[in-house]
Amino acid sequence: MLSMLVREIGEFPLIDKLAQTIAEDNGSLIQRLDERGFRTLLAIGDDAAAWDGPPGTRVLTTDTMVEAVHFNLDYTDWRDLGWKALATNLSDIAAMGCSPTYSIVTLGLRGDLPVDGLLDMYRGMMDVSKVHGGALVGGDIVKSPAFFVTVAMQGAAPSSDATILRRDTARPGDLIAVTGPLGCSSGGLRMLMSGAEVRGNVARDHLRYAHNRPVPQVKTGLLLAEHGVLTAMDVSDGLVNDLAKICRASKVGARLNAGSIPADAILKASFPDDWLDLALGGGEDYELLFTASASVINGLQSIVDVPISVVGEITDGDNSVAVIGSDGKAMAVGHGGWNHFES
Amino acid sequence: MLSMLVREIGEFPLIDKLAQTIAEDNGSLIQRLDERGFRTLLAIGDDAAAWDGPPGTRVLTTDTMVEAVHFNLDYTDWRDLGWKALATNLSDIAAMGCSPTYSIVTLGLRGDLPVDGLLDMYRGMMDVSKVHGGALVGGDIVKSPAFFVTVAMQGAAPSSDATILRRDTARPGDLIAVTGPLGCSSGGLRMLMSGAEVRGNVARDHLRYAHNRPVPQVKTGLLLAEHGVLTAMDVSDGLVNDLAKICRASKVGARLNAGSIPADAILKASFPDDWLDLALGGGEDYELLFTASASVINGLQSIVDVPISVVGEITDGDNSVAVIGSDGKAMAVGHGGWNHFES
Repeated sequence: MLSMLVREIGEFPLIDKLAQTIAEDNGSLIQRLDERGFRTLLAIGDDAAAWDGPPGTRVLTTDTMVEAVHFNLDYTDWRDLGWKALATNLSDIAAMGCSPTYSIVTLGLRGDLPVDGLLDMYRGMMDVSKVHGGALVGGDIVKSPAFFVTVAMQGAAPSSDATILRRDTARPGDLIAVTGPLGCSSGGLRMLMSGAEVRGNVARDHLRYAHNRPVPQVKTGLLLAEHGVLTAMDVSDGLVNDLAKICRASKVGARLNAGSIPADAILKASFPDDWLDLALGGGEDYELLFTASASVINGLQSIVDVPISVVGEITDGDNSVAVIGSDGKAMAVGHGGWNHFES
Repeated sequence: MLSMLVREIGEFPLIDKLAQTIAEDNGSLIQRLDERGFRTLLAIGDDAAAWDGPPGTRVLTTDTMVEAVHFNLDYTDWRDLGWKALATNLSDIAAMGCSPTYSIVTLGLRGDLPVDGLLDMYRGMMDVSKVHGGALVGGDIVKSPAFFVTVAMQGAAPSSDATILRRDTARPGDLIAVTGPLGCSSGGLRMLMSGAEVRGNVARDHLRYAHNRPVPQVKTGLLLAEHGVLTAMDVSDGLVNDLAKICRASKVGARLNAGSIPADAILKASFPDDWLDLALGGGEDYELLFTASASVINGLQSIVDVPISVVGEITDGDNSVAVIGSDGKAMAVGHGGWNHFES
């Protein structure tokens, strides 16, 4: 049976259906926030969501996915789209050393979108929230010629004297470290878009998941902030580009060692010529990029349960990132000037 | 000289220009929040905005304007667009009985939009913030085939034991009241879209301003909550439609007296046949619709410095709104089933 379309169902029945679809899971998520000292006063259905909470630092971020710019329903299914729309925001919260609390979702919808797809998208939002926390408490649905999903997410520091992770606190001599392997998300995107030959179902699934279901490093971000890290951000535009943002905010330079960039065996086997470019410049990894002293980073290795790789160091300098190859010379890096509005 | 376009300037120079344009005004706005007990830790430029604040209830809302759906640059200038993008959110905060704190702005931009226009839009955001409060602390800029502006705004209740205004607390016997005259915004839209003959510059300016620069009732919302009102919302989809939402949330009915609906002399003179339809169903007035006992509403008349009209009463009932004409009979009202997705 064909799914009903957005223009056929009407605004309020659509909101009702979305709310019903997530009611049970979201109720549990709100209860988990209550256990952290929050009191949810109003969720979906009023002019605004409302809550009380314990004292302490709050953070607020937003991230948007636009069809044909950030995703394509040909290779991202609806449930993955919901996962990713929240995961990108969860990753920003993680990069502040905070945990997620309340989110509101704006849907810009074409009338010809299927209602069942949207319900699946909300199921994907619950999937990621059940693992990483936070709850949905409202939003807005508007008609739009371009389909987009915008999430605004609030987070809270774990205690009233907790450190929040910033971009402007890197100092010369800090080591530069990154969680996880890099590049699989953009490898996955390349595979999905161009049909690049990737051999084996395990490899194909791994790369597709890396692109469509990125794992926000919420737990790791909290541990970094607790154990002496001051400077972090998430890797969304690619390692080199994002490190350049830390350099710019902190008024320092950076040197990356190409030989230390973490990439996994599947990426290397699937893209033997390009894996380093993908890891340095590909983006959407949603790993954490951070800087700290050698002793802080050594201490973290036994505390954090994801791989941490030291990839370079912060230098005195001119806001720029140099990538040093195995020959000790600076490499040309293609993605230094990434601009979302070109091409 | 032609303005530079979004696709020519690059993402970071655009963000820098926007931040510079508002830096002085926004700095003053942040200082005003500091005076209310907030401490702004990070504004534009990190993974998230961050702040500390006094204990108490927080509210979070979001509102979006999509080009060709919610606005048209042929009859809304850039500075007005900025005003309105924030004003619609400020109105939601007002309807909770709260005052605005921090906002984040998402821009979905076509590459061919003029940078100067966007700078003017941010000036309009400062215009409305200087009058009604709040500050900008971040956001997101994405490429989009449809131009849209989404604002997520947080607000705070004035004290830790303050009432917040809800939709689900109306009771049979409550009077229904509304601030201000209604209908001028949709009268203005009709004039702008169709070139409807409206005589006189004063009248034309009045209607255009009502549509493009709506005044959020922040101060009034705080006074309502302080002086015994429990139930309120803002009038964005039209009086009848919005009252139906209160009825639905509170499981009550409502009776509106057509003869009591407030409309001003300019609207009546400009639309002698349609002014009541515009006032009942037109929308985007951003006045406050509220219910309370007769004694609470009488008490407000001397406290609130905007006109308050009693327009009906809450009844036992079936979630529906009846409009009673001067003959004592129910009138047919065209806008009862407003649906944003029907052409």
